Amino acid sequence: MEIALKEIREATHEDTISTDPEDLLAHGYSEWSSTNVDHLPVAVAYPKSTQEVSKIASICHKYRVPIVPFSGGTSLEGNVSCPYGGVSVDFAFMDQIIKFHEEDMDIVVQPSVSWMDLNEELAKRQSGLFFPVDPGPSAKIGGMVGTNCSGTNCVRYGSMKDWVINLTVVLSDGTIIKTKRRPRKSSAGYNLNSLFVGSEGTLGLVTEITLKLAVIPPEYSVAVVTFPTIRDAAAAAAGVMRAGIQVAAMEIMDEVQMKVINLSKSTAPRQWKELPTLFFKFSGTKASVKENIAMVSTIARAHNGSSFEFAKDVREQKLLWSARKESLWSMLALRKEGSEVWSTDVAVPFSRLADIIELSKKEMDDLGLFASILGHVGDGNFHESIMYDKRVPGETEKVERCVKNMVVRALEMEGTVTGEHGIGIGKKDSLLMELGHDTLGVMKSIKLALDPHWIMNPGKIIDLPK
Amino acid sequence: MEIALKEIREATHEDTISTDPEDLLAHGYSEWSSTNVDHLPVAVAYPKSTQEVSKIASICHKYRVPIVPFSGGTSLEGNVSCPYGGVSVDFAFMDQIIKFHEEDMDIVVQPSVSWMDLNEELAKRQSGLFFPVDPGPSAKIGGMVGTNCSGTNCVRYGSMKDWVINLTVVLSDGTIIKTKRRPRKSSAGYNLNSLFVGSEGTLGLVTEITLKLAVIPPEYSVAVVTFPTIRDAAAAAAGVMRAGIQVAAMEIMDEVQMKVINLSKSTAPRQWKELPTLFFKFSGTKASVKENIAMVSTIARAHNGSSFEFAKDVREQKLLWSARKESLWSMLALRKEGSEVWSTDVAVPFSRLADIIELSKKEMDDLGLFASILGHVGDGNFHESIMYDKRVPGETEKVERCVKNMVVRALEMEGTVTGEHGIGIGKKDSLLMELGHDTLGVMKSIKLALDPHWIMNPGKIIDLPK
Repeated sequence: MEIALKEIREATHEDTISTDPEDLLAHGYSEWSSTNVDHLPVAVAYPKSTQEVSKIASICHKYRVPIVPFSGGTSLEGNVSCPYGGVSVDFAFMDQIIKFHEEDMDIVVQPSVSWMDLNEELAKRQSGLFFPVDPGPSAKIGGMVGTNCSGTNCVRYGSMKDWVINLTVVLSDGTIIKTKRRPRKSSAGYNLNSLFVGSEGTLGLVTEITLKLAVIPPEYSVAVVTFPTIRDAAAAAAGVMRAGIQVAAMEIMDEVQMKVINLSKSTAPRQWKELPTLFFKFSGTKASVKENIAMVSTIARAHNGSSFEFAKDVREQKLLWSARKESLWSMLALRKEGSEVWSTDVAVPFSRLADIIELSKKEMDDLGLFASILGHVGDGNFHESIMYDKRVPGETEKVERCVKNMVVRALEMEGTVTGEHGIGIGKKDSLLMELGHDTLGVMKSIKLALDPHWIMNPGKIIDLPK
Repeated sequence: MEIALKEIREATHEDTISTDPEDLLAHGYSEWSSTNVDHLPVAVAYPKSTQEVSKIASICHKYRVPIVPFSGGTSLEGNVSCPYGGVSVDFAFMDQIIKFHEEDMDIVVQPSVSWMDLNEELAKRQSGLFFPVDPGPSAKIGGMVGTNCSGTNCVRYGSMKDWVINLTVVLSDGTIIKTKRRPRKSSAGYNLNSLFVGSEGTLGLVTEITLKLAVIPPEYSVAVVTFPTIRDAAAAAAGVMRAGIQVAAMEIMDEVQMKVINLSKSTAPRQWKELPTLFFKFSGTKASVKENIAMVSTIARAHNGSSFEFAKDVREQKLLWSARKESLWSMLALRKEGSEVWSTDVAVPFSRLADIIELSKKEMDDLGLFASILGHVGDGNFHESIMYDKRVPGETEKVERCVKNMVVRALEMEGTVTGEHGIGIGKKDSLLMELGHDTLGVMKSIKLALDPHWIMNPGKIIDLPK
């Protein structure tokens, strides 16, 4: 290991490698994550170019040193943890926009560009374009590729895999490849974009990403509707999907989550009704937004929706949407000293969403856990945030059981164990339950083919065959 | 081989295997395809279930017999040819809809369901749903998965990879896997859907497909505009994309293609102006369709578009769209005895589309070839159809040179050698030019990992490493 670090320094710069204990802790432990491990990385590497990443990989390959990519560090399932030590490769110095092809509506970026900065930059350049994938605000493009993340815009725009035109990837032995050239559409060979997107750094290190961009719609609006029960809200959402109404976003929040927002005062002085609530974002031309609002309002009323409120101007749009945007922060703000929030997600076919939410809520209530639910309801994808205190005997076990049961329930309903957060270290058993040994076997074969020494983010998604 | 066929008969049914010479010819030679080989399959297998496909694969695996999947048989690059003999697995008896989840807007089908029959069936059931991927009319879902095909609806709805929820795949040794369960969104492990979609049967045999369905928009319209030059037409199309106008389809046809339609009388008595033409399809709500037509008309006029004609009713919609729909048939109808049509595609970034079309047209004109161009212009994807007669000395070579030059040009413009037809046997060299040895090396590693004896559709996409 020492020799490897020395060689990396020699091959790149003296300051590429850090072994500062705080740095190691910041890269090995994450308070965002529900799962953490006892190990830390042995070193953190800060490459400045694809070439340097390649050198780091080839040296690590030679000495069989694990490599764990790191960008925003806000993933939830221990995706950036270092259970086998090794080198955490932090892309902090690779945070540039490389090239903007405005006419082709695409942009080439490095892994540590944050999606929010990217959108600010696009606004500054008055391009009329934006990047629509919107996970947590601190997420960066590299990690977003890793987990195939999405967010509230997914129902209209899809997830990361739908926005990647090509990737520059450093393979485990340092070889640099480009997955594709720059067409928006291709049938040329295996779809390596979609293979690397969502592979959580277990197949290679992504060092450059060409992203599609979308045109900013001329008109937006936001509406909020409350419902007597979560089932009514979910049914209304299903009705909207089934009618083919193109919403820009459609989010569900339960009465607990609405209460959390009121308690945290994050949107004060506004007080929200503490009822199951749907948040809608509309976008398009003036007429289509107006039509969509009317249609959604009719469907909501048919499912006992009341107080359909829509924004009359941009200020009101922001105000209404803020409750959704502040939801996770609101929950975190309520933590008492020592308590933590376990946040996780599953996705099921539309028709089962109300069932799984009801069952999961009931279980948490029965166990006396303080937990809220919110979801990208148009995708059948929902999130549970459970407050707990590790110091209270049995509480961690309760939460773990709840999460496990939610996962099992999702599988019984033909769903998936994660809609947008990935497997990391926290959901490996769940993945096996979801897909079985033979399908996981295919993944293992691919992993072994591309990373024969199993050095790329080892311990994530799948375990080394014994 | 004889033993393998005997074992397949024993393990399935006496009539699973055919060695009828006509049958072998129908599966080994394709008049659709620009590339054919001298070999035919040794036998054609007609499995009736996933279990039977699994038995066939495991027997072929044991005796190292090549397996080539076959459904519609209308691919263009020799994708179903049998250069190493072996067994052509025809899914003709696996043509059923297995399960329709109307509420979840998805449907489970076998490989030989045709997309047109599927849409007829969905219409019959009055579900208000349709399957939007629209390649050539004879295409079947199995082959569509194989080539990651698309069609005119792609600009609005994407390609096959965007519509697959899960696949049942028989691997080379007969193992049966399911790529995912049934959520519309997932971040659980490697994206095997997108790996098998577009892999042309080289990684496994797809025996069951769960497809997303879309809601039929309440309103449609069609418009046709002519332009003085192909550059004007392409620029107008780019303007429409850049304005973010959501067209349901946007197709370009050059003056030759318009002439072909007139000559073939396929839409008689209507006569078309023999000028570069854009065909638009609009869909959505009444107001949004109206707005979109107005915006597109403004953009078209700004690019010298004239005679903007839009359909006043469904009959006129069909009439106007028919020219686009009949384009390939019209070209084929003009063939004199002995002549053939070489049809192929490439895709480039939007901004280069006019350049590549102009250059490619000029080359064909200079060589005295009769050729037409049409394209899914919103995707930067276009098709050349070149008429030629193999018996005329030098003509085949001319066509081959044109196609090669078009491919090279696409690559120089950062494009791809095929937007929607796949690589098959005809574009392997082009794929290598597009991606280089290292990226192809990744594909080979994956291929070897999943098909160590290289029996799955051998000779397609990539060649066995020496």
